[in-house]
Amino acid sequence: MAETAVLLIDCPDRKGLVARVSTLLYEQGANILHADQHQDHELGLFFMRVEWALNGTGEPGTDGGAEAALERFRAAFAPLAEELEMRWQLSWSARRPRVALFCSQYLHCLADLLQRSGAGELECEIAVVVSNHRVAEPLAGFYGIPFVHIPVTAATRTEAEAEQLKLLAELGIDLVVLARYMQILTPKFVSAYPARIINVHHSFLPAFIGARPYHAAHARGVKLIGATSHYVTEVLDDGPIIEQDVARISHRDQVDDLVARGRDLERVVLSRAVRWHLERRILCYGNKTVVFD
Amino acid sequence: MAETAVLLIDCPDRKGLVARVSTLLYEQGANILHADQHQDHELGLFFMRVEWALNGTGEPGTDGGAEAALERFRAAFAPLAEELEMRWQLSWSARRPRVALFCSQYLHCLADLLQRSGAGELECEIAVVVSNHRVAEPLAGFYGIPFVHIPVTAATRTEAEAEQLKLLAELGIDLVVLARYMQILTPKFVSAYPARIINVHHSFLPAFIGARPYHAAHARGVKLIGATSHYVTEVLDDGPIIEQDVARISHRDQVDDLVARGRDLERVVLSRAVRWHLERRILCYGNKTVVFD
Amino acid sequence: MAETAVLLIDCPDRKGLVARVSTLLYEQGANILHADQHQDHELGLFFMRVEWALNGTGEPGTDGGAEAALERFRAAFAPLAEELEMRWQLSWSARRPRVALFCSQYLHCLADLLQRSGAGELECEIAVVVSNHRVAEPLAGFYGIPFVHIPVTAATRTEAEAEQLKLLAELGIDLVVLARYMQILTPKFVSAYPARIINVHHSFLPAFIGARPYHAAHARGVKLIGATSHYVTEVLDDGPIIEQDVARISHRDQVDDLVARGRDLERVVLSRAVRWHLERRILCYGNKTVVFD
Amino acid sequence: MAETAVLLIDCPDRKGLVARVSTLLYEQGANILHADQHQDHELGLFFMRVEWALNGTGEPGTDGGAEAALERFRAAFAPLAEELEMRWQLSWSARRPRVALFCSQYLHCLADLLQRSGAGELECEIAVVVSNHRVAEPLAGFYGIPFVHIPVTAATRTEAEAEQLKLLAELGIDLVVLARYMQILTPKFVSAYPARIINVHHSFLPAFIGARPYHAAHARGVKLIGATSHYVTEVLDDGPIIEQDVARISHRDQVDDLVARGRDLERVVLSRAVRWHLERRILCYGNKTVVFD
Repeated sequence: MAETAVLLIDCPDRKGLVARVSTLLYEQGANILHADQHQDHELGLFFMRVEWALNGTGEPGTDGGAEAALERFRAAFAPLAEELEMRWQLSWSARRPRVALFCSQYLHCLADLLQRSGAGELECEIAVVVSNHRVAEPLAGFYGIPFVHIPVTAATRTEAEAEQLKLLAELGIDLVVLARYMQILTPKFVSAYPARIINVHHSFLPAFIGARPYHAAHARGVKLIGATSHYVTEVLDDGPIIEQDVARISHRDQVDDLVARGRDLERVVLSRAVRWHLERRILCYGNKTVVFD
Repeated sequence: MAETAVLLIDCPDRKGLVARVSTLLYEQGANILHADQHQDHELGLFFMRVEWALNGTGEPGTDGGAEAALERFRAAFAPLAEELEMRWQLSWSARRPRVALFCSQYLHCLADLLQRSGAGELECEIAVVVSNHRVAEPLAGFYGIPFVHIPVTAATRTEAEAEQLKLLAELGIDLVVLARYMQILTPKFVSAYPARIINVHHSFLPAFIGARPYHAAHARGVKLIGATSHYVTEVLDDGPIIEQDVARISHRDQVDDLVARGRDLERVVLSRAVRWHLERRILCYGNKTVVFD
Repeated sequence: MAETAVLLIDCPDRKGLVARVSTLLYEQGANILHADQHQDHELGLFFMRVEWALNGTGEPGTDGGAEAALERFRAAFAPLAEELEMRWQLSWSARRPRVALFCSQYLHCLADLLQRSGAGELECEIAVVVSNHRVAEPLAGFYGIPFVHIPVTAATRTEAEAEQLKLLAELGIDLVVLARYMQILTPKFVSAYPARIINVHHSFLPAFIGARPYHAAHARGVKLIGATSHYVTEVLDDGPIIEQDVARISHRDQVDDLVARGRDLERVVLSRAVRWHLERRILCYGNKTVVFD
Repeated sequence: MAETAVLLIDCPDRKGLVARVSTLLYEQGANILHADQHQDHELGLFFMRVEWALNGTGEPGTDGGAEAALERFRAAFAPLAEELEMRWQLSWSARRPRVALFCSQYLHCLADLLQRSGAGELECEIAVVVSNHRVAEPLAGFYGIPFVHIPVTAATRTEAEAEQLKLLAELGIDLVVLARYMQILTPKFVSAYPARIINVHHSFLPAFIGARPYHAAHARGVKLIGATSHYVTEVLDDGPIIEQDVARISHRDQVDDLVARGRDLERVVLSRAVRWHLERRILCYGNKTVVFD
């Protein structure tokens, strides 16, 4: 597959932004594969995602291969970005993000992500599985992923998080995925990976925040249950929502049935969020996400 | 179409309930069209819905026509019901429920219900359209439904409700449908029609209770919006949920788009709830519903 | 609401297209509200939709009001479009498309479109309701839309279509909507309104082409039924699909239930297709559509 | 968990069926957990599923434990079933069905079923994984399931099927699941396991029968893709449908995207079908299924 670059931009909206960016890309000889923009007229913000081929075919801007082309683009783009007050991220398909999967005792999300990764659905390196239990160890082993057991108790939370953070730093982790990890992260941990920790909550947020959402849904008598994937912020279950889905239930379904049906939702919304993050389709602003399709 | 009877039962669960009820129906010569049961094992409750033809074919139990057959069944069933501590409702297709539609300024739900009623989708007589505004008057007139304008202000709420209740009593109303009626009913009004007032709330309850749920949904950045139909109780937006549905939205959708998409959901969840109520498919227990399909 | 212009483009894909178009818009002082592109890499095609405000604020390119600004853009864009082999359509919000609604005996789609149009959901003038039956006449009358009865029999089809086409021409119709119109149009009629006749078919195409799709769906025992809106081409039920939706059914549902549930699907997929067409979100290519969201 | 029995019945409809069956169950002291009926009025057929506890509490009919209670019920029920021309199946939770999983090169469905089985979601013994390729061997091994490699070519189809059938017979297999097994079974094989072979087809049947349905869906320009699980009959992709689901796609999705999204649908519709079959919720009649919920 050809190597590609992705540029993600957000900045104050003004006239001519698309013209300026697309003209620069044209001058650099970029072969654009996908481009998408969004304007939030209320807040006066502009968002853009462009993906182009780094094909090194000898055309202007591609001499020296993909990496050199990327560096030339970066050098040319930086002054424009500064002038237009852009926040921007430039990424390159050859540099695959490194991911840590956190889990506890329920393994359906972990098994799903490992299977997808093994089947080539996720553009990343899964560098480690971290858990406060040992039950995931054989599964991680089967997929050839190192497993690290870090027990967590109320008394040891601080030390455990320090150990986790040290491990993530050593492994050069870009993204932390909480695959039904049942411990609450401290603000310190969260602030170390802003918009880089993805969690799945087993309800249709903002309904049923907190513990035992399927019990709460059953008690309220809802006719649909949901699951939500979101970036983790300091406020529990309150971060920017990435994806949600629901399933129909009926009066026949007891809490156990909700749990079973919910597992399918959790797998789907979490794996989509991870994939979209890895494909650099997501921009956060305020407490929301733009997800380019 | 043949005349039919529907029996709805709820009672403490015990062995032999289906046998007792179905044997009685058999002895009465009933030709069962649909039967459905549900047990809530947690609460030890039993629910049943049976629908049978009242065909007056001269078979035992049908001499004298449908009404007489119904009375014979009622007389035979009452002792059993008392023995087994059943709450029960017996209804007859020839006795069509009388419905009052309440609305304010948004007419999409009203228009939908009137069109469905006119097309024969709803087994009822729409006896009146009541509104605190005049905007619905021509639409009601087109469908030949009497329109009554009862203005409501904070100062006149008590008198307005008294006038509404008097009107409903005079018209022999069985069911009140709040088709985006934007006034909150007092406990007095609600208690006059227990499990007989259906409202549509424009969110996926229990998320976004109260006013301006689409604004709240937009602010939270959800990826699906919903609508909920429910019986009205004294607690705002807290009654037994009858139906819910959702639609996918994206970062491109502003509040106006949510409102527009939500209208389609509101129509669907409200009309389903009304239809199911009219077909006697719904049983309330605690703060939940059993909806037989 | 501000007046806006929409430009729809399709052309062979090549580098720099976005740069060329967006630079031209910038030079014309356009305040872009939405822009979206799509590339079909397989076929080497490029599609673009741009919407901008014609606000006449005295900025370059807006002197003389919206119409003059539009003309200046047209004059500037034509040479570029020719150079880049573009097919393009430029439209202006102040010029509302004129729509003819065709129906037969089922009125749910007609009632839905008229109600939406009356509520301001559809940016168009509904100029006429045409039917081979008289049943829709009162409904059209209620919404103040002229009703024309043109009976159609096998023997009179040619004359009837001639009369229809004459009427559409006289009324300056831009879009024909077949709201459950149960006659098959001849190729002559279809070719007079290429990609400007929208039909709703009551199945999930390409399953159950032709007559009585709900009967066919019931016979096959499917677990979901669907509806499809599409542009009409000479081949029955084969035109470019605009929108589809489905609803879950069960073994309990008889053909009548499928018909009833299907009505809700038909309303939704047809009204979406009409709205998207009116908002110039749809581009046809080959036998497919691009629908910009 | 308590041991339970499930009785599945289908027979010509007549009055009193529910009364007869439920009275017998009551006389046997059965503690009914779930009961559901369905009548096909068009064909005059009656279907019933009853599930009850075999709790061996010393009540009449339970002396001697669950197995004895089951045998007593069988003896009492057989004459009634004969009188009423019933086809019936009686099953017992302690006798877990034995399942063979067939796959080829795509492992997502296999991985999903093995993970669910390992997590206790499926009430069965997975006795063997059979494949015409070797790629599934490690996965089967991880879950401790015997793997048997039986290559199939056009020339060796007859011998391969004989080998498969011999293996299934030796293992006492009750259900064969084709988890994206890409070989077509011969009528001989199919007739050996009537209504006991479940396949997943990667389209919304009856659309896109046969090979490469995602390519066909892409070519037709549909807006939703689907997947279907069904019992295998002699006619390709024509057996009784058990479950279907769909996912929304857009013009942006290429065939590869359809394949990726479809995988999630395939997993869901296949696993639901397998679970419902194992829970004895499915009755086949004609070319359709009743699926009790």
